[in-house]
Amino acid sequence: MPSGGGEGQILEAIRRRARLPPGRGLALGIGDDCAIYRPRGALEDLLFTTDLLLEDVHFRHATHPPGALGHKALARGLSDIAAMGGVPRFCLLSLAVGQRVDRRWIDRFYDGLLRLARSAGAPLAGGDLARAAKTACDIVVCGAVPRGRALRRDGARAGDAIYVSGLLGGSAAGLAKGKGRALMRHLRPAPRLRLGVFLRDRLGATAAMDLSDGLSMDLRRMALASGLEAAIEAPPRFPGASPEQALHGGEDYELLFTVRPRVTVPPDFEGLPLTRIGVMRRGRAGAMYLSGVPLPALGYDHFRETP
Amino acid sequence: MPSGGGEGQILEAIRRRARLPPGRGLALGIGDDCAIYRPRGALEDLLFTTDLLLEDVHFRHATHPPGALGHKALARGLSDIAAMGGVPRFCLLSLAVGQRVDRRWIDRFYDGLLRLARSAGAPLAGGDLARAAKTACDIVVCGAVPRGRALRRDGARAGDAIYVSGLLGGSAAGLAKGKGRALMRHLRPAPRLRLGVFLRDRLGATAAMDLSDGLSMDLRRMALASGLEAAIEAPPRFPGASPEQALHGGEDYELLFTVRPRVTVPPDFEGLPLTRIGVMRRGRAGAMYLSGVPLPALGYDHFRETP
Repeated sequence: MPSGGGEGQILEAIRRRARLPPGRGLALGIGDDCAIYRPRGALEDLLFTTDLLLEDVHFRHATHPPGALGHKALARGLSDIAAMGGVPRFCLLSLAVGQRVDRRWIDRFYDGLLRLARSAGAPLAGGDLARAAKTACDIVVCGAVPRGRALRRDGARAGDAIYVSGLLGGSAAGLAKGKGRALMRHLRPAPRLRLGVFLRDRLGATAAMDLSDGLSMDLRRMALASGLEAAIEAPPRFPGASPEQALHGGEDYELLFTVRPRVTVPPDFEGLPLTRIGVMRRGRAGAMYLSGVPLPALGYDHFRETP
Repeated sequence: MPSGGGEGQILEAIRRRARLPPGRGLALGIGDDCAIYRPRGALEDLLFTTDLLLEDVHFRHATHPPGALGHKALARGLSDIAAMGGVPRFCLLSLAVGQRVDRRWIDRFYDGLLRLARSAGAPLAGGDLARAAKTACDIVVCGAVPRGRALRRDGARAGDAIYVSGLLGGSAAGLAKGKGRALMRHLRPAPRLRLGVFLRDRLGATAAMDLSDGLSMDLRRMALASGLEAAIEAPPRFPGASPEQALHGGEDYELLFTVRPRVTVPPDFEGLPLTRIGVMRRGRAGAMYLSGVPLPALGYDHFRETP
């Protein structure tokens, strides 16, 4: 669920009008990576996220083999669950298959999706299937966290240290180059599920979200939601990625998180680097600075008026 | 989640491969109107359904005003919850808006959706928003039933009486005529939520599903799932609908249900007719007879090989 920019304005208008009635079990509505539902009597909160993957918007058949696409559709949803510190429970898939797609394509798409579903513990529980002019899929993932323990993007406090996992810009570089390890980052992103649980249980992260639309866009959302400004240095770069790709490139699916200033963060988690890139501070909510210079949010926005 | 025919074959293959691992909280996977999830410690089971609504497949901008489309997107999902005897809890919406769509269209779409969401008690909790060549939306609805009490399509037993609610064929007739009360049935279907709860709590219905793809297609699915054959008479017709439209026309969103032979079903529920149309019996699973003559399933199938 993105926000900020033109898309953010539309979503903010929807959010205001959707006005969640209190006490119906919904603990969090529009505006974070997932909605949170608290079932009556349950020991855990349930997280829900939906993600569209559209032909010629998010992918092209020429560059995305069906197995990679099935993997990616689910990985995007799992990444939202990871961002809130959740453990996956199940997924649902709505798939409209385009005219250039045959039965074999469908089989391979499900191969990729079901393989990741099994390894992540998110069995496919249902969905919808239709024919259309272009391929479109919408993944729904349900995850769970102990009651009241979900990581949110609005929890950062002034003085908190800002971290990212992994190396950024790989997905954008891979898409531009069309080959190599960077391309694999674009085609087969790895949702950071174990890291999300580690952030929640061991580090007591104050805020977290996944990097789907580029660091500059997503950091701005976290700073806005938390009512703070963010001061960062250049983030760690994926080999071959430009500084711009690391700052603004989308679809890395690494985690962006904040911790209280005295928390000791290890240099890596299971081999994945964890890098301090800056600090949250009081100021204009949503403002960002890179090495002291104002940083614009240039990540991906479907509804940006001027590119 | 449809099944039967070409679409049914594909879904059956997916269902077999998805193989739900036991004991993870999923009580029912692919194959019914909703998946069922049992949260740890909770007093209720949760129902989940997803429904695609695609431009030039399920609707055209020329005939579907945005408010009606928002209503219909949610009504389709709510109808699946009604079919299982559930009470709505919340919904999620993924919306890709087509090129011919402006901000005003988006506002009116959400007007229609949010009005129904409020009256049905299904607040919009999140979703996704994107731009695409054509408009596509995917609604997710979560509902709840007391633990173990969901109505399923596979529960009919030999000797059970088969009923439908309302008058059939109105939606198909309305789409063909393009005007009148029948068209309103097509544009603004009313999910039978209170009836679903009545079937579950008062009638002890043995099976239920909603009529989304036409009586012949949906009855076949119920008979197949229950391992029985169905013998029916002509169903009650919406004024102006042909016998074929009542038998095979889609999108009526009435409920099809079965009860034990001695259950007394009232002639109507809150003014909505409840009509006995036949009986389930032992025989070839999925076979159907209309007044003794074999009845083909001619409802809507996205993947039918020969029309």
